[in-house]
Amino acid sequence: MRVKALVSYDGTGYSGFQWQQNAPTIQAELERALQSLTGTFTRIVAAGRTDAGVHAEGQVIVFDTEWRHPLESLHRGLNALLPAQIAVLALTPAPATFHPRFDARRRWYRYTIYHAPVRDPWAARVSLHVHRPLDVSAMQQAAATLVGRFDFSAFGSPPQGNNAVREVFRAEWHSQPAEHGGQWLYFDIEANAFLRRMVRMIVGTLLRVGYGVLPPGAMHDILTARERRLAGPAVAPQGLSLRAVAYDSL
Amino acid sequence: MRVKALVSYDGTGYSGFQWQQNAPTIQAELERALQSLTGTFTRIVAAGRTDAGVHAEGQVIVFDTEWRHPLESLHRGLNALLPAQIAVLALTPAPATFHPRFDARRRWYRYTIYHAPVRDPWAARVSLHVHRPLDVSAMQQAAATLVGRFDFSAFGSPPQGNNAVREVFRAEWHSQPAEHGGQWLYFDIEANAFLRRMVRMIVGTLLRVGYGVLPPGAMHDILTARERRLAGPAVAPQGLSLRAVAYDSL
Repeated sequence: MRVKALVSYDGTGYSGFQWQQNAPTIQAELERALQSLTGTFTRIVAAGRTDAGVHAEGQVIVFDTEWRHPLESLHRGLNALLPAQIAVLALTPAPATFHPRFDARRRWYRYTIYHAPVRDPWAARVSLHVHRPLDVSAMQQAAATLVGRFDFSAFGSPPQGNNAVREVFRAEWHSQPAEHGGQWLYFDIEANAFLRRMVRMIVGTLLRVGYGVLPPGAMHDILTARERRLAGPAVAPQGLSLRAVAYDSL
Repeated sequence: MRVKALVSYDGTGYSGFQWQQNAPTIQAELERALQSLTGTFTRIVAAGRTDAGVHAEGQVIVFDTEWRHPLESLHRGLNALLPAQIAVLALTPAPATFHPRFDARRRWYRYTIYHAPVRDPWAARVSLHVHRPLDVSAMQQAAATLVGRFDFSAFGSPPQGNNAVREVFRAEWHSQPAEHGGQWLYFDIEANAFLRRMVRMIVGTLLRVGYGVLPPGAMHDILTARERRLAGPAVAPQGLSLRAVAYDSL
């Protein structure tokens, strides 16, 4: 039986999703918990391989299992065995042909900035702290130019033998007041797929627009020039989270 | 010069506020940072000695220093040297006679419960996960009976040679919807002062009311009987946070 799971994790302290020798990964924790419960080594496949320190609130994984009890007991057992930083939010049967990466139509990532004069311990785990003034309307204008189907080589590398063309459906900033005179800035980006480090390089470039180092129009110029050296540096991983993955059915 | 600081911290992994030999404490981190900056060992005094694993968003500390530069640079220096889990939110001069514990008029603590069928990694650090049904209106009714001036011996021990009479100004539950069908339950309690573990023992008892094990009226009976063995067990520290301390002036 193929099983689909919705997984949430705090990526702090993990070397990313994908299994690695001698490094703590989300995949290793999930496979360890599955093996303890089912007695069989069970390979899992995920929708997105989040980088070291990156979080997820809506990661999708699948695995094949011969579990003969109700899925509800597998669900509870997994949450009892997994560390506090990882939780399975839902567990459902999936068609035998379902693949979480190949079948995904849209991925939504959110990058969070804590914009405040003084840093905050509660923000540190899930955001980048920025204390310099930011022109959010210029960042919004620059972000809007990313929507469409483009070669995103300027903002990341495709897997070997693949091209860098991706379709961005949504790229926008939202703000929300925070305590102590600060504000939360959320960058929401949805695309059919992403290049490695693409969101963090885009945010790094948008911040340069926000600081006034680049005009809003530079974003589109860098994109069409496909020049990595013109883009901003990738921002820190702790602000990034995989919020949701959308499929045609299911 | 006496300096007052507003301090926020994530108490996870710390053995409480107060200095201890061979254990990580908030006080030790603050004193270490102050010593690095000023070159002199500087003793700090806090409004409340939070227990191991307990957080603060509004802890108040004072220290005496011969710092001759602007306070702004001391503030920035401290935040640069402190670990990410601890931040100084504000630094202001205080009268030479100001004492953060003796002069405090009110302390506000909040206990957070994540009430949801499935646990969540984002809630785990700052709340207690409860999946059983809860009668929040019974918990509200029981909480209301705590408001007033009482001997709180049933819910904690006073420091040696001291009595257990405390005045509670406010004790109430608030709820807020959470993602994935859950809800946040906040227990806000304000008093002139608290006994050790008092908030956590009160919440443990209120949960027994919420589960239907005790009727709402039992709260007041336990209080007036001053019988510790009738009270519920203290709940886990990670749900507790010192939100604010109020003074007459300043």
